Parts: sequence; C-alpha cells; structure tokens
Amino acid sequence: MSSIKNTRILDVLNGLPVDKTPVWIMRQAGRYLPEYKETRKKAGSFLGLCKNPDLASEVTIQPLRRFDLDAAIIFSDILTIPDAMGLELKFEDNRGPFFDKPLSNSDEVNSLDPNNIAKKLDYVANAIVETKSKLNNEVPLIGFSGSPWTLSTYMVEGSATKDFRKIRSAVFNNPEMVEKLIEKLTFSITDYLIMQAKAGADVLMIFDSWGGLLNSENYLDFSLNPMKKIIANLKSNEGTKNIPIILFTKGGGSWLKQISESGCNAIGLDWTTNISYARETIGENISIQGNLDPCALHGTEDSIKNAASRVIDGYGHGHRHIFNLGHGIDQFVKPEKLGILIDYVKEYSMQYHLS
Amino acid sequence: MSSIKNTRILDVLNGLPVDKTPVWIMRQAGRYLPEYKETRKKAGSFLGLCKNPDLASEVTIQPLRRFDLDAAIIFSDILTIPDAMGLELKFEDNRGPFFDKPLSNSDEVNSLDPNNIAKKLDYVANAIVETKSKLNNEVPLIGFSGSPWTLSTYMVEGSATKDFRKIRSAVFNNPEMVEKLIEKLTFSITDYLIMQAKAGADVLMIFDSWGGLLNSENYLDFSLNPMKKIIANLKSNEGTKNIPIILFTKGGGSWLKQISESGCNAIGLDWTTNISYARETIGENISIQGNLDPCALHGTEDSIKNAASRVIDGYGHGHRHIFNLGHGIDQFVKPEKLGILIDYVKEYSMQYHLS
Repeated sequence: MSSIKNTRILDVLNGLPVDKTPVWIMRQAGRYLPEYKETRKKAGSFLGLCKNPDLASEVTIQPLRRFDLDAAIIFSDILTIPDAMGLELKFEDNRGPFFDKPLSNSDEVNSLDPNNIAKKLDYVANAIVETKSKLNNEVPLIGFSGSPWTLSTYMVEGSATKDFRKIRSAVFNNPEMVEKLIEKLTFSITDYLIMQAKAGADVLMIFDSWGGLLNSENYLDFSLNPMKKIIANLKSNEGTKNIPIILFTKGGGSWLKQISESGCNAIGLDWTTNISYARETIGENISIQGNLDPCALHGTEDSIKNAASRVIDGYGHGHRHIFNLGHGIDQFVKPEKLGILIDYVKEYSMQYHLS
Repeated sequence: MSSIKNTRILDVLNGLPVDKTPVWIMRQAGRYLPEYKETRKKAGSFLGLCKNPDLASEVTIQPLRRFDLDAAIIFSDILTIPDAMGLELKFEDNRGPFFDKPLSNSDEVNSLDPNNIAKKLDYVANAIVETKSKLNNEVPLIGFSGSPWTLSTYMVEGSATKDFRKIRSAVFNNPEMVEKLIEKLTFSITDYLIMQAKAGADVLMIFDSWGGLLNSENYLDFSLNPMKKIIANLKSNEGTKNIPIILFTKGGGSWLKQISESGCNAIGLDWTTNISYARETIGENISIQGNLDPCALHGTEDSIKNAASRVIDGYGHGHRHIFNLGHGIDQFVKPEKLGILIDYVKEYSMQYHLS
C-alpha cells in the first residue's frame, strides 16, 4: 500500500484517528507567493505553466517548502478538459481564462470529442509523476477536476459572468443541450480522474464551484447526480476504488445531506455554512473539509487565530475534519499570515484529538 | 383599519386564510417592460426617476396594468440612503449605480450624517403618497430598504464587485469601522421605514442582498442582529407596530431558523433553497415568500408552468405562502411570459386553499 509518511489527511478521509487536525489550503500554489509569480513568468503563460510538468510540479511543491501542510495539490486548471474536448481555451493578461466561442446550441455540443482525454491531457499525468517524485512520499498528492455542471457553466458562458444567465436559462429552455454536455463531461472527467490516480494522485477532489447557482431540484439533476455517477465509476474501477474522494459544492450549504449520500469520503464546506451544523447534518461517516472565511487572512494575527479557533471549536472533538479555507486563498494575502494560520491550527487542534 | 380591497398578501402575512396564493414579483417595475423604459427616458436618468414622485408612481403602477398582481412595490433604489447620508451616488450609462468615493476608514464613516433621513428622502414619501392615490386601495403597497450590512457593502466597495474583498476583509481587519457604519445605517433605516409607513406603505421589506457573503457567526453579528434591531424599533413604534415585515437574505438558506426568530412576518427565500425544507425549518408561524428561479421565465410556457407547480407543490397545503421569484426579474424576460406565470399561479394554487 501507500508508503506516505504523513498520512493525516488519508487517515481523516478513511475515518482513522489523527494527532492533530490536518490542513491544506485551496489554491495554495498561487499568486500570493512571490516564488509562484517567478515561475509563472518563466513559463511565459498560465497555460504554459500547466503544460510544463517541470514547472507545474515546481509550483505544486513551493507552498510545502514554506508551510507545515499535510498535502500537496497538483497545479492545473479545471478548464483543461473543455480545451481537450475541442473548445479552445484562451488567456489574456488581466483577465481570467475564457472561451472565445462558447457553446450556444446542441450541434456545437455534439461536435465536442469526449474521448482520449487521458492522452490529450498527458501533461497533467506527467506533472503528477514528477511531483510525486519530488514529494518523496512526504505527504499525499491531491488530484482534481471541475464538476460536469461547473465545466458546463464556463463552456456556455465563456467565462465567469455576472449572473450566469445563459447557462441558467439553458437549463429551462434547452435542457437537452445541457444534459448532453453534462453526459459528455461526466465521461471525460471519469477518464481524467482515473488517469490522475494512475499517475500517482492519492486523493481526488471534485470542484463544483457553481452548483450554488441552481435551484434545489436542478442541483440534484444537473450537478449532484452527474458527480455521483463519476464517484460510482471511480469506486467500481480497480485503479481508483480505494482512493478517497472530496466533493466541494460552493454554495451547497442547503444540500449537505444529499451530498453526504453521494459516495464521497469528504464534503468541502464553503465559509457560509456553520461547521457544527454541517457535522450534525451529515453525521459521523463523512469527513468535512473547510471552512475558514478566506478573508480572515486579511485580519490581524489575533483575529486570524480567533477565526481559526471558531472553526476548530465548531467541529469539536473527533477525527473527521480537514482544516482548509472555505474557498481559494486570494492573491493579496501575505504569506506570513498563512504561516501563522497553519501553525496555529496544528497547535490548537491537538486538544480535540487526545484519546 | 385598512380599506384595501385585495388583502391576500396582508392576510398571508397575518396568518389568515386566502383563496389562492398571492403573487408579486421582485423588480416588477423594471426594464423588462417597454413602458418602464419609456418613462425612464422621460425622467432623463435613473436617479431622476426615483426623485420624481409623478414618474416614480407611474412606473410603480405599470406592472399592475398588465398583470394580476396582489401588491405594488414602490419604485426606488436601496442606495438612496447612503446618498442622503452624504456619500454621493453616481450613475453612468451601461453601469449600475456606484459611489465615486467609497468609505475606506473610520473618519469617513464618522463624517456621515445619519440624521434627518426622512426629510432628505421626502421624495420617496411623496412618491408613496402619489402611488397610494393612484392605487385607489386596489392592492397594498410595499415599502422597502436595503439592510445595514448590504448598504455597508456598497458603501465600502463602491459598487457590486467580483468578490467583495474590501468589505469582507474589513470585517476582520477593521470591525470597529464596520460596526460604526452599521450602527448609523440601522438608525437611518429605521427612520426611513417609519417615514414610508407614515406616507402609506402597507408592508415593509428589508433586502439583505449580500448577507450571503458572510460566514455564519458574522452573518448574525453584522447582518441579522442589526435587522432584528430595526424590526424591534418598528414593532415598538406606534405608527409601524402593526405593519408586516418581510426579511430577505439572498444566500441565507443556512440561517432560516435564526431569521425566523428575528421578529419578521415573512422570510424571502432565494431560488437555491427548497421551499418544503424551508417550511419545515421555520415552522408555521412565519410566512414564506418566493422562490421560483428567475431564469425559469426564459423557458417555454410548459416549463414555466412546471417550475411554478414545483414551488407551489413544494409549499403544499396552507396559507402562509406568497409566490415570488427568488430574485429580481431580469431585463431580458418577455412580459407575456410573466403574464403566463402569474395567471398560472392563481389558477394552480387554488387546490391548496380549499377548506
């Protein structure tokens, strides 16, 4: 089995006791780190960075040199899949990634090619192999994908828009198109995650960044059920059946019970949901990851510790909590503040893990 | 007491039986109506429209000429209060309202003047008086204000921003400033709502559009508790003690229980929360307003009816439901689709009101 030295996160995901609450940070390899910016400059572009296994593994490792983190997460972008399916991803300075020609009808959806994703995205596999080698079994490596609904959202909107009216309306006026797109993505994402596990990912996470746009019935139909299918696919596949899965729907606080029945090992919680309430709602067989308000990192040292204590106290005694932010760290955080947070979580959480 | 002919909405708010589910639509006086655009053109500007009682009452009435609505809501903007406090509101074409000089420190907050709001905003009172006269007691008129937290958000950010990082960070690194600002707004909003009731508003609604940005502890401290104070102020004031109050926190699905204990008569529900779940959570003593996905109005006639049925069935038998969207109607909706929805709600809901 695994010869990973720091197994805290794997233990929490498998329901085993740990000595302190493990911690990693969404977007921990990112723009708040000067060394990340240096490497990105070297890569020339964001997509260049994703596609260069040497540099992608370098930025993946960077936060672990600074902080006492319990996991690495492979550096990549969720929009590589639509790109590989034929919807060309573009990047411009001072703007997030976008699609020049977003999908507007069923014909365009039909022309997407969901096959051979593993081959088309072999640069991600290569980055994982190289990262695993550099990690030297110190901590586990998390692989990830966007959810079918979230990728559909970007593919129809073109980018993150103000109110996502196109995709939200398509659910009502062209549900067949959205269903077809989601079906293709479900297929591709399954392949992609299996590939990541084969390459060495120890944990898999599904980011459903935009599930919270949907009403509750449509959340089940268009977002949760396709994710459930992916999880079932992974759990029935020889290479991935034992790999823990974290499912994160931002804005999913109303649907925790349903998410907890998806087959995932842990639920990612955004900062708006009270963690005690979440634990009560989902019971003791699923772990919770989260959920510090990312803006707490702009506070003073005392206020950071105070906010972190509330999350840890809120979870209380028990071993099924992975500390994280409720959303990705933003580029304006000072790295030393993140250091204060991580050290504090380790120290403060010990009291909740005494036998 | 009131001599209003159509009392359905007042009855629902007061827990009395009704023959069908009443309905009104957030932003029903708005850009999706060609006659609104005409009147706005006449006014010259958005703020000009707000400040002209004749034209403001005209656009308030317009949707009632087309649709079988059970209430009117006075046409105005939530940002008139900050403007009256001294933070000058600006409008430019193709951009929402904004503040040129958003608040950045406590001195700027201290210099705001929360007094004499009723006098400074007498144009709203005048618009209410004129609307009441035009309504001729057919249906009740709803008055409204933004919540202290939501107004603070705009006053610190300058406008609706991508991630609201300034105000969300201020909560952690300058809570004193935010608290001071909220205190002033709580005072002004109380005055403003009392003034609206005196002028003739039959129902008061508090729009907490951005409460959903906060983590659960901070939602209570910075958003719900100030709203509770306003409600307590209104309930202890002779002129407003019997006026029903609707409280709407967008993204507040995790906090329904706490909101139901605020003293309000009804909770506005956005489209992401299941209405059956909301009813179970808050019990039978509070009404629910909502919560059709606004994008459902971009569907076919059948899909509109289907989506509306789900909301009405989801609430089920009982008299404490006001049908509405889960957010304001958008400018791209075809008016005839809204007509289909409203007629259908009236017809379909009757089965749930038989004795």
